[in-house]
Amino acid sequence: MNRGRLLYAQSGGVTAVINATAGAVIETARKHKVEVLAARNGILGALREELINTSKESRAAVAALRHTPGGAFGSCRYKLKAPEQDRAPYERLIDVFRAHDIRWFLYNGGNDSADTAHKLSKIAAEFDYPLACIGVPKTVDNDLAITDCCPGFGSAAKYTAVSVREAALDVAAMADTSTKVFVYEVMGRHAGWLAAAAGMAGAGTDDAPQLILFPERTFDEAAFLERVKATVARVGWCVVVASEGIHYADGRFVAEAGGTDSFGHSQLGGVAPHLAARVKDVLGFKVHWTVPDYLQRSARHLASATDLAHAQAVGKAAVEYALAGHNAVMPVIVRSSDAPYRWKIAPAPLAKIANTEKTLPKTFLRRDGYGITDTARRYLAPLMRGEAPPPYGTGGLPKYVALKNAAVAKKLPDWRR
Amino acid sequence: MNRGRLLYAQSGGVTAVINATAGAVIETARKHKVEVLAARNGILGALREELINTSKESRAAVAALRHTPGGAFGSCRYKLKAPEQDRAPYERLIDVFRAHDIRWFLYNGGNDSADTAHKLSKIAAEFDYPLACIGVPKTVDNDLAITDCCPGFGSAAKYTAVSVREAALDVAAMADTSTKVFVYEVMGRHAGWLAAAAGMAGAGTDDAPQLILFPERTFDEAAFLERVKATVARVGWCVVVASEGIHYADGRFVAEAGGTDSFGHSQLGGVAPHLAARVKDVLGFKVHWTVPDYLQRSARHLASATDLAHAQAVGKAAVEYALAGHNAVMPVIVRSSDAPYRWKIAPAPLAKIANTEKTLPKTFLRRDGYGITDTARRYLAPLMRGEAPPPYGTGGLPKYVALKNAAVAKKLPDWRR
Repeated sequence: MNRGRLLYAQSGGVTAVINATAGAVIETARKHKVEVLAARNGILGALREELINTSKESRAAVAALRHTPGGAFGSCRYKLKAPEQDRAPYERLIDVFRAHDIRWFLYNGGNDSADTAHKLSKIAAEFDYPLACIGVPKTVDNDLAITDCCPGFGSAAKYTAVSVREAALDVAAMADTSTKVFVYEVMGRHAGWLAAAAGMAGAGTDDAPQLILFPERTFDEAAFLERVKATVARVGWCVVVASEGIHYADGRFVAEAGGTDSFGHSQLGGVAPHLAARVKDVLGFKVHWTVPDYLQRSARHLASATDLAHAQAVGKAAVEYALAGHNAVMPVIVRSSDAPYRWKIAPAPLAKIANTEKTLPKTFLRRDGYGITDTARRYLAPLMRGEAPPPYGTGGLPKYVALKNAAVAKKLPDWRR
Repeated sequence: MNRGRLLYAQSGGVTAVINATAGAVIETARKHKVEVLAARNGILGALREELINTSKESRAAVAALRHTPGGAFGSCRYKLKAPEQDRAPYERLIDVFRAHDIRWFLYNGGNDSADTAHKLSKIAAEFDYPLACIGVPKTVDNDLAITDCCPGFGSAAKYTAVSVREAALDVAAMADTSTKVFVYEVMGRHAGWLAAAAGMAGAGTDDAPQLILFPERTFDEAAFLERVKATVARVGWCVVVASEGIHYADGRFVAEAGGTDSFGHSQLGGVAPHLAARVKDVLGFKVHWTVPDYLQRSARHLASATDLAHAQAVGKAAVEYALAGHNAVMPVIVRSSDAPYRWKIAPAPLAKIANTEKTLPKTFLRRDGYGITDTARRYLAPLMRGEAPPPYGTGGLPKYVALKNAAVAKKLPDWRR
């Protein structure tokens, strides 16, 4: 083990398949006889010297990460400032890495994490500390630059399209005497990738979802209500998919609508209940709404096989790049063909990915702005393809693994800010 | 076909497996050379003489009902008044049945539908019209009397427990820096069956969901907040499952909390956002919440194999009872053993099922009132057991069938109220 160790950390919102990446990282490193430590609760664990020795996990437990959602070592929302503003955390990380002989750092997250990994690689170079920093892509938001798609997205996309299709069958069956308008809220504050995925639930303009509200477009309430009315008149009912990030022309987010309830207590926002209330008040239709929230990013039971393969491939490649001497890169997914779907993994510089957000291309939006194009469908279909169900126990629930997460003994003083 | 025809109608909220019952009805009737008509949009279709000829459906289409959620012929929320108050609809139904030679009526619904079928059987007898009325059980609420459980419930229960377990893994991974309290809202206005099912997501009191709020218990906000606080202190995070039907000591439903948003528009209620806002305001924790709404009753992709078997068995038995001359009965599920799980179908009089609501037994509630007992677990486990995934297409979505639903030519004047 004198070659040094590899540290793996998860960052930001978890996904249905981020642990599959973790499993691939550990399995690949084990093949190369490299010991993997994991940071507890993401980069914070590295700063706090709260490290986990993954060598204590059995082969079966590591294999079970493939089908276990959540974040096996914990993740965090914690953005390091630029070293020019606050250099101490970076220096602390180098101290911790040095103390534990960590030569490779794999940071599994989005564009913030890519930025952190990139900066850390520079600081290490300044200190002349031999460290390879590899970003590993992950986000249900699918908003990373360079990569064709992000592990985690395909499964959330599949969950969304399937759930919208199923709920729409319910609405269609009941519309004569009950709910006529159903509003489904999807994640995606700035980018409408999951909203677009919902479009895969139907084919024609009269299939559900008949209206998709993308964060890339300004929300025009009057036009929206007019469309809902026309759809109900034509189809008999209407399913609306709304991104959590839609906003009015003046920039206010619709989700900020939370006010006070009838008991005088504050209400939490939510685009779906707000839109549903507007439809009910203005058009008089019976409405229902759903906010799946975390369910859409943790639904491992409905993961896409393509997404799972991506998640494992980036984990494997990240270790291989690290051991081959790459630094400040991310294994990204490169697509060479839609049908048949062909893809490979290639390294891309973190500098090009850090802090950049990829929104939905204009060519993905139908001209009326309320649906997706065939171009979008060609992009989305392979990402949602294939089933990869977890094993189930006799109680009818999936068998998800809980790791031992054995702590590595600390060697440094506590980290205090 | 001079033996007469069988009419099948769906009623009330649909489930993930109600179409599996429909498919079993049609397949069984075909074996007995009996033609099946279906009412479009439930009993309303019968009143309006909007009938569907299921003979036009291919064997493959009927088989696909087994794995298609929603209501294949449409359902409705429409309760007939008692004949003493309004006899006209019952007489109209007899007219329609006579015009189309309908001798057997299968009404697939909850306790309202059982009541309607029961009353209709009496009116037919008064008119000396030969009609057998069979109730067929269905409801995700699991609140029908006599039957051990209701088709539709097991799948919704499985969906709920799996979703809670998956979301809890997400919350646990993020709690250090992000969401500490997650609130999951389940259906069940008066009966906490689905709330109890959520309890199957974990085993010990520190497993998610740490707190379940049942509609059978008065909601005490102060005690609830104290429990949340203690759970976060002990576990680091807390998952709350709340039934839509929880109420305060004065009888007000928590879901009625909808007030006005910050733009002055009315808000729709929702127990989960309300509770989450209270936790945030009073305890200061970061919160997230979900309202799965229709997703929980239409999630055929996660159906329970036991539930599916029940749904098909009651459909088959309903036809067999009808043809064997039973009247005013419902095929119910009788359990003879928890482990190994053993069950059979037996006829029960509609009179005993009509308008009765079965709430959660006291023995199912943990003494502290916030969880379930082993008795509940023994009851619930077999109902959620087994997977029965639908076939998927190359686009990664389930292949759900849309029937032709060919209309039967009308013979009577329009029905006007």
